[in-house]
Amino acid sequence: MSFQLTILGCNSAVPTLERHPTAQLLNANERFFLIDCGEGTQVRLKEYKLNFQRINHIFISHLHGDHYFGLIGLISSMHLLGRNKDLHIYAHQELKAIIDLQLLASNTELNYPLFFHPIAEADEQVLYEDEKISISNVILNHTIKCSGFIFKEKKSKRKIINEKIEQYKIPFDKYNGIKEGADWIADSGEIIKNNEMTVENSLAHSYAFCTDTIYSEALIKKIKEVDLLYHEATFKKDLAGRAKATGHSTTYEAATIAKKSAVKNLLIGHFSQRYKNLDELLIEAKATFKNTYLAKSGLVVDFDELYS
Amino acid sequence: MSFQLTILGCNSAVPTLERHPTAQLLNANERFFLIDCGEGTQVRLKEYKLNFQRINHIFISHLHGDHYFGLIGLISSMHLLGRNKDLHIYAHQELKAIIDLQLLASNTELNYPLFFHPIAEADEQVLYEDEKISISNVILNHTIKCSGFIFKEKKSKRKIINEKIEQYKIPFDKYNGIKEGADWIADSGEIIKNNEMTVENSLAHSYAFCTDTIYSEALIKKIKEVDLLYHEATFKKDLAGRAKATGHSTTYEAATIAKKSAVKNLLIGHFSQRYKNLDELLIEAKATFKNTYLAKSGLVVDFDELYS
Repeated sequence: MSFQLTILGCNSAVPTLERHPTAQLLNANERFFLIDCGEGTQVRLKEYKLNFQRINHIFISHLHGDHYFGLIGLISSMHLLGRNKDLHIYAHQELKAIIDLQLLASNTELNYPLFFHPIAEADEQVLYEDEKISISNVILNHTIKCSGFIFKEKKSKRKIINEKIEQYKIPFDKYNGIKEGADWIADSGEIIKNNEMTVENSLAHSYAFCTDTIYSEALIKKIKEVDLLYHEATFKKDLAGRAKATGHSTTYEAATIAKKSAVKNLLIGHFSQRYKNLDELLIEAKATFKNTYLAKSGLVVDFDELYS
Repeated sequence: MSFQLTILGCNSAVPTLERHPTAQLLNANERFFLIDCGEGTQVRLKEYKLNFQRINHIFISHLHGDHYFGLIGLISSMHLLGRNKDLHIYAHQELKAIIDLQLLASNTELNYPLFFHPIAEADEQVLYEDEKISISNVILNHTIKCSGFIFKEKKSKRKIINEKIEQYKIPFDKYNGIKEGADWIADSGEIIKNNEMTVENSLAHSYAFCTDTIYSEALIKKIKEVDLLYHEATFKKDLAGRAKATGHSTTYEAATIAKKSAVKNLLIGHFSQRYKNLDELLIEAKATFKNTYLAKSGLVVDFDELYS
């Protein structure tokens, strides 16, 4: 069981050789979710030896180029390299016409099914759900419509302690009920309480991806206590005016949101090109929220290590 | 005066860390022409320290992604970095709607004028012309409509030999006429023939860019005797069948076109990912056309050195 986030790019606006536009890969128990897809994302995936054919779901926050210009290239490469399994894209409606027009211009009929799931502009909904995870959008406040995404792993069933199975002679067909919390009546007639036979199986991890956005207190209750919040910090705190005018946040604002929502850890990113030394941004954020980390291309966050 | 071609990428289909999709920059006497613009082209331009704001004209051969997926990113970066001078794009009509839709989705009104010049599908025309250069399209034979481009520098005026100016007391206001070929009547009444007073100023360079295309003899007369032909050689000669089926050429076919059109030099590119060692492709082409070179990212071809 793993819950790992790899940063493929975390810069704003203009890509350079060293700093790449926004893209992240979340590996939630071998389900691979791509979040945003700036230009060059397919090359970053290769660089970090992440097989892009394992990605089945792609979430695009908004239609500024630094968050999606690499998508059509990735879709095309998946096709050229023989993909045949489904791909699901979750994005604002306008993206569909852009993809369709580009496939039409190249006379390409994809050899795999592509499902487009429009994100409602005004609603916050579950976009994807299965037995292990639930993924929802949150409305962000940017210069164009923009979504954050919240990934919540479901609490897995409890694990039965091996010795208890032998001790109380629990038959196989009762395992599931006990894993789900049932008590057990032993041959002796004694009622064995569930928590005497079982232990918690693993933690249910949670991750909130929030970029691009101005400082928005509306976000606080929605991302309450997540394990990790990725929040943009395009500017240092002295540029709060510029941040607001361009639909972005400062280090101080990102840290304040983290603090008020009592998240466990904060990862800041989407840095302006103007900053050569990002340590200064980290220092500013840590002054308000201690558990802050700096995103950079290639960073891997293992959620289990966040607790240790 | 310089006439220099920089290869930014010369691979087919899928970009990787080391091999980039098609893009080239032609510097014709400090006029910068970008030819094709695969994903990541703006980053390559930065890598080679070529200021992309100096590019005023972009030529796109066709709408397969490996030839244009980097264009919208470049257009956007030009905008974000404060460009205000005109940009001209020459491409098939369908590209305009793709660009417009992406600018609309991001609510971007470019702060510079963007002029779109559709390339006629069935006509070969002069696309751009000024006093120094003329640029035309040629129709290639690929799986979708596709254009090659021919760059022909104009013969510059002749240069007057300094000593002759003194010897024959040629006044300044006669310089232009003599540079254009006029004779001169000296004070003595003697007629001085133009070629006694002037020399050729510089060579008129020519370049033909031909990718993607099957082997096509229709091309031969159109690219006759150019200084440099860039012709795709996606496959080695043993894959002639696959080349034809996918709208591409082999090494042998590229070299045969070069030979039959009596070009001075051949640069092969658009290599399939399957080839790790490109030297074998070079050897195959050189067997038919000796003056063959291998394109690779970062290669700079100085046309004046081609003659030496």
